[in-house]
Amino acid sequence: MSSWKDNIRKVVPYVPGEQPKIKNIVKLNTNECPYPPSPAVEKAIAEQSKNDLRKYPSITCGELKTALEKIYPVTDDMLFLGNGSDEVLALCFMTYFNSSKPVLFPDITYSFYDVWCDLYNIRYTRVPLDEGFKIRPEDYYGENGGIIIANPNAPTSIYMPLESITDILDHNRDVIVIIDEAYIDFGGISAVSLLEKYDNLVVVQTFSKSRALAGIRVGYAMANKELIAALEAVKNSFNSYTINSLSLAAATAAANDTVYWQDCCSKIKVTRERLIQQLDALGFDTLPSSANFIFTSNKNINAKELFEYLRKSGIIVRYFDKPRINDRLRITVGTDEETDKLIACIKSYLSK
Amino acid sequence: MSSWKDNIRKVVPYVPGEQPKIKNIVKLNTNECPYPPSPAVEKAIAEQSKNDLRKYPSITCGELKTALEKIYPVTDDMLFLGNGSDEVLALCFMTYFNSSKPVLFPDITYSFYDVWCDLYNIRYTRVPLDEGFKIRPEDYYGENGGIIIANPNAPTSIYMPLESITDILDHNRDVIVIIDEAYIDFGGISAVSLLEKYDNLVVVQTFSKSRALAGIRVGYAMANKELIAALEAVKNSFNSYTINSLSLAAATAAANDTVYWQDCCSKIKVTRERLIQQLDALGFDTLPSSANFIFTSNKNINAKELFEYLRKSGIIVRYFDKPRINDRLRITVGTDEETDKLIACIKSYLSK
Repeated sequence: MSSWKDNIRKVVPYVPGEQPKIKNIVKLNTNECPYPPSPAVEKAIAEQSKNDLRKYPSITCGELKTALEKIYPVTDDMLFLGNGSDEVLALCFMTYFNSSKPVLFPDITYSFYDVWCDLYNIRYTRVPLDEGFKIRPEDYYGENGGIIIANPNAPTSIYMPLESITDILDHNRDVIVIIDEAYIDFGGISAVSLLEKYDNLVVVQTFSKSRALAGIRVGYAMANKELIAALEAVKNSFNSYTINSLSLAAATAAANDTVYWQDCCSKIKVTRERLIQQLDALGFDTLPSSANFIFTSNKNINAKELFEYLRKSGIIVRYFDKPRINDRLRITVGTDEETDKLIACIKSYLSK
Repeated sequence: MSSWKDNIRKVVPYVPGEQPKIKNIVKLNTNECPYPPSPAVEKAIAEQSKNDLRKYPSITCGELKTALEKIYPVTDDMLFLGNGSDEVLALCFMTYFNSSKPVLFPDITYSFYDVWCDLYNIRYTRVPLDEGFKIRPEDYYGENGGIIIANPNAPTSIYMPLESITDILDHNRDVIVIIDEAYIDFGGISAVSLLEKYDNLVVVQTFSKSRALAGIRVGYAMANKELIAALEAVKNSFNSYTINSLSLAAATAAANDTVYWQDCCSKIKVTRERLIQQLDALGFDTLPSSANFIFTSNKNINAKELFEYLRKSGIIVRYFDKPRINDRLRITVGTDEETDKLIACIKSYLSK
C-alpha cells in the first residue's frame, strides 16, 4: 500500500555545536566572539524596533550594502546578503554546483559542505589535507564541478596564503571557486582583491564571528555581478525576504563601526598567542592559527577524556570523533579570563 | 569550450509586491497589518538586544514554541519554526513533495507555489477554480503527489470551510496536504483541529499578517511529530539557525499578547466590511473576503488603469496581469483613514 511516508525526504543533517542554557559556563565550542558587538548595534536595533516592523523588510538591503562597499572593493551588484553565511553557502551550492563532475573540498573542513552536497544531490570528492593539515593547491588541478575551501580552514585554523588561492584559481577557470572566509578577520588576507581578475571566484563572509553577531544571522557573498544575479534569482525563488529588519539594522551599525571591529580582532589575536604559549608549556601541539580558535593535541592526553573533564568542570570545547582528528580539541579563543580558567582546568586534569 | 556559466542554475523567481521608499504613501499592496505590533514586542526586542547577540540563537526556540502551544492544540514536537512562512513552505515543498506524480494547487493562488515546484523540480498541475473563484474539493480526488491550498486563498480572499478540507483529506490519505493559513485569523477557522485525525496534514501560519510583524520574518508549521522531525532534518541540512535571537524574542512577545492580536483582527474585519460596502455603492463586485485584503472588479472600469491612477495619487494596490484576474485589483484592508483616502481617490477617478 502506498503511504505519504514514501514521499518524505530523509536526510542526515549537520549537527551544530551545543548551545547549553547552563549559567556561568565557559563556552568555547562554537567560535563566537567573547566580546559584545559594537555599542552602535543596540541603538540601531532600538530605533528599528519602533519603525514599521509591521512592514516587510527592505528587499534591496541598500544601507547594509553601502556599509560593506566602504570596506571591500565591490559595488552593490557584487554583493549578496543572506540569513547567516550558512544560508549564503547553501544557496551558493544550489546555484553554482550543477555539474555532473564532483565538487572538491578538503577531507577535514567545515562539516556542512558534504551535508549541502547530499541535500542537493551534488557529487563531491573529499581531498585529503597533507600531513601538516595543510591544503595542497596541486590536489585541486584535476577536472571537477567546482571547489569550496574554507580559509582559514576549520577546524584546523590554518590559513592558506593568497598565492595558493591564485594557483587554484589559475588551474580552475571553468568552474566556480568559493572561498569561505568566516574566520578571515583573525589573521588572513581576504581573497576579495582577486575578484577583479577572476570572474569565477565567490568570497563568503559573516557577521557571526569578528563582528560578534552570531545571534542576528547575517552573512554575505562577494562576486562578479553575473554570479550575484544568479544567486539572487535562486534566493528569490526560495524566500523573497531572508533578512529581517532588525538584523539588517544591527549588521549595518556593526559594519559601520570598523574601529570597534578591528579592536575586537586585535584583542582576540593577542589572547590566542597567549593561549598557544600556555598550551605549549603544558606539552600541547597546536596548529598555527589564523582564526579565533585553535586546534590542539597532546600526545600524553586522550582528547575525548579531556573534553569530558572540561565539560564536567563547566568549560565546553569541541571534540570531533572523526578519523585523523580524534586526538585533538578545537577551542574557541575567549577572553583572557576564560583562557585562564581553561588553562587552570587543564592543569588540574594533568595533575590528577 | 566549457565555462563556469554552464554550471549556473537559471530560475525565474517569484516577484513580490513592491516596497517603495516614498513617504506618505498609502501602501495597500502587500497585505501588511495597518497597525503596529503589540507594545510588548518593542520591550522584548530591547531586552534581547542587550543579551548576548554575540552568541548563536536558541536552536530549539523553546520559548516561542511554549507561547504557540498555549494557543494551538499542539505539543512542541508538532511545531516547526522558520524564517517567514515562505521559508517554512519552501522547506515543506522540499521535504514532502518527492513523488513522481504532480502536486496539485489552484490555478489562481499564491504565485510562489509554482516557483518552488520549479526550484525543486517538482511536477505540478494547476487545478482551475470554479467560475466564482472557489475551490471544488472533488477536483482534488485524483491521483497526485501532494496538495497545497491557501485558506483563505490569495488573491481571491475566499475561505473554504473545514468540511471541504476534511473532504479533500478523506480522499487523499496517501499524500501530504498542506493548508497555507497566512490569512486564517481574519475570519476563517484553522485546520489545526484536524491534526488529531489526519497524520498527513500540515498547517502553515505566519507572524507577518495578523500579528503585524512582517519585518521580523517568522512563520511556523504544525503537523504530527513524524512530519515535523522530517522537516527539521531538512532544515538542519540547509541552515541550523534560521531564526535570529531578536525575531525570536519579538515573535514570543507577540504570541503571548493574544488580546492585542484578536483586537487587531477585529478592527481589520470591521474596516473590511465598511470598505466592501463603499465599493458596492460605487458599482464594484467584491469577492466575499475572509482575509485582510479584498479582490474586486468593476465592469465599467479598466483595472490596470485604475491601478495606475491610484499609484499616481500615492495609493499602491496590487494588479496581476494574468488570465481570469486581470480585470481585478487586490487591495489590502488598511486603517479607516486609509480606506477613506482610497474611496475618495476611486471616486475622483470615476468622475473624470
